[in-house]
Amino acid sequence: MRKYLIGLVSLLILSGSLCLAQTVQPKIIDDFKPSTLNQPGQDYPQVNSQGYARFHIVAPQAQSLIVSLGLGGTRGGTPLTKAEDGSWIGTTAGPMEEGFHYYHLTIDGGVFNDPGTLNFYGSTRWESGIEIPAHDQDFYALKDVPHGKVQQILFPSKSTNTSRRAFVYTPASYDKDKSQRYPVLYLQHGWGEDETAWSNQGHANLIMDNMIAEGKIKPFIIVMTYGMTNDVKMGGMANFKIEPFQTVLIDELIPYVDANFRTIADQPHRAMAGLSMGGMETHTITLARPDVFSHYALLSGGIYTPAEIKDKSKVKLIFVSCGSFENPDGVKKAVVALKEAGFNAVSFVSENTRHEFQTWRRSLYELAPLLFKN
Amino acid sequence: MRKYLIGLVSLLILSGSLCLAQTVQPKIIDDFKPSTLNQPGQDYPQVNSQGYARFHIVAPQAQSLIVSLGLGGTRGGTPLTKAEDGSWIGTTAGPMEEGFHYYHLTIDGGVFNDPGTLNFYGSTRWESGIEIPAHDQDFYALKDVPHGKVQQILFPSKSTNTSRRAFVYTPASYDKDKSQRYPVLYLQHGWGEDETAWSNQGHANLIMDNMIAEGKIKPFIIVMTYGMTNDVKMGGMANFKIEPFQTVLIDELIPYVDANFRTIADQPHRAMAGLSMGGMETHTITLARPDVFSHYALLSGGIYTPAEIKDKSKVKLIFVSCGSFENPDGVKKAVVALKEAGFNAVSFVSENTRHEFQTWRRSLYELAPLLFKN
Repeated sequence: MRKYLIGLVSLLILSGSLCLAQTVQPKIIDDFKPSTLNQPGQDYPQVNSQGYARFHIVAPQAQSLIVSLGLGGTRGGTPLTKAEDGSWIGTTAGPMEEGFHYYHLTIDGGVFNDPGTLNFYGSTRWESGIEIPAHDQDFYALKDVPHGKVQQILFPSKSTNTSRRAFVYTPASYDKDKSQRYPVLYLQHGWGEDETAWSNQGHANLIMDNMIAEGKIKPFIIVMTYGMTNDVKMGGMANFKIEPFQTVLIDELIPYVDANFRTIADQPHRAMAGLSMGGMETHTITLARPDVFSHYALLSGGIYTPAEIKDKSKVKLIFVSCGSFENPDGVKKAVVALKEAGFNAVSFVSENTRHEFQTWRRSLYELAPLLFKN
Repeated sequence: MRKYLIGLVSLLILSGSLCLAQTVQPKIIDDFKPSTLNQPGQDYPQVNSQGYARFHIVAPQAQSLIVSLGLGGTRGGTPLTKAEDGSWIGTTAGPMEEGFHYYHLTIDGGVFNDPGTLNFYGSTRWESGIEIPAHDQDFYALKDVPHGKVQQILFPSKSTNTSRRAFVYTPASYDKDKSQRYPVLYLQHGWGEDETAWSNQGHANLIMDNMIAEGKIKPFIIVMTYGMTNDVKMGGMANFKIEPFQTVLIDELIPYVDANFRTIADQPHRAMAGLSMGGMETHTITLARPDVFSHYALLSGGIYTPAEIKDKSKVKLIFVSCGSFENPDGVKKAVVALKEAGFNAVSFVSENTRHEFQTWRRSLYELAPLLFKN
């Protein structure tokens, strides 16, 4: 926690400076480097040490080109201007928040991706992504430590009449000691995302590898699958139904995982967590099936109230988190109430982040050591 | 092989009809359906039963919009025309060849992807992809059979000073009988592609799942890693060096796989195959290290001559393939010469395909039953 506090103090100092200097044009430091999420060999987009992002797109005959960033310091978009060589260049009006951000280009009124970046599934489409280096990026960095595997499985689903995909993280030790069995965390993505999000955007596997290597957690398995079993693209969340997904998760995926991986296949060793819409799914399914999960976590995905939980003895942990620019008071108050009612409840607020993946990376980092402790 | 011959006969009949009707405008059948490689919920691009592709892009203020297809019936591109509602629509001038094709959009002089499709790594960038349903698509279809896993591993590489990624296919039986060990095929992608290609574009995992379920092959493991260890983006193939990749493969990846998977870790149970540039890598590395691999396969990736192979006793199989629109005579002659020299050599020609993934899907389908037979 300490490093987030340090980050907060730095920001307060910076805010003070900005107030004093508000009539002066902010100086943009010219130390731009390619974003770490660029496609191989691509120089743009770039990010500087202050968190400004700079874009460079080739489209000589285009009439207008706007970078639409979903979140960060420059809501509403960064218009690019045409250079003499026909390329389009622009820099965000302000620094962006730390971590991962989705974005896309609006070219002559149409929505396209930046050809410079890798794509990430969000908003029900593969979007461009940019990474603003965070002061605490070390915990999800790719390091020279033993690495677990992320496995694609295709499991049979009679209820949806197809083979469905999930990704399963197994820790590095899984292939060494063949007698050991592991607890399992079922970890859900948010609306418009899919089962790739926690690995691609969230670096869940690297967070686990690093924490295990440092001895901060006992190894466990993570299972990530697609949580939108009915078509919610057009109608949005209003049309979302939980029942079809609950059937896939409880009656099809969990039995498949327990049959095909060395899990500890009982309620005390099974957790469910989700971000945003995945938190709402977690909330509903854990309350409906207290016999299946013992550890619950909602990341920017609502809260639990004590009255909702029928049998307190079945709940080992409730973890509730969000970004400091979301609803931290609501999260903290909910956890106070849960504690007063006798639950093992923990809140976490990610400093200076919103409804975005840096909040959720940090949330996983805070959650993992609390899971399966007894 | 029989179904390809039937396909060939059909085509000859069709060609005859076309000759008779050559002055008549070909009639495009209006049974267009969304390509199977579209992003969820996207209606375009579409493909009809003849193999025509139709594109629909929203970019109301754009000046020009061209679809650039790398291969297929419409080389040079399909210009789209603006409709009254500001969207751009166009259909290929002719039917495209069966199978997977990379493409991209040129919008006002800039290169972008079609927002309707999934992206596939080729030509050293993530490109749009379209699938023309093939008469023999059943062998790589997603079916209700036991599915193996595709696992992402991160293996330590001292020679390149990083953790490198590979994907490992393990058959469904791998997690059932924990005592069984498996032979391994090391399977390489082509220039500008990466370790995702054989699963995403090639459906190697589904080809294996289906063949195993039908009892056509004995299960084996497939390992796919990135074969371009030095930067060949700018200089192209001229700058490619094999040595760094050989070190990664032989000294780092193979020992890691043998330590972390239940392999049969000896030369008779290890194969190497590659498509295009991956075939050139296979050729060079198998000749340099006959002590490591016993089964060799080049898919649209050159040939072996008997004089190149020092110790005939170490080679169990040589498989050489290409599309019928590539160099089938060269492939067939090479295999005749290898057979005359006493090698167990097999040629395969994919009918009516070029230097593209339908050739390589079919090649894997023909190769797999020949591997590890004794």
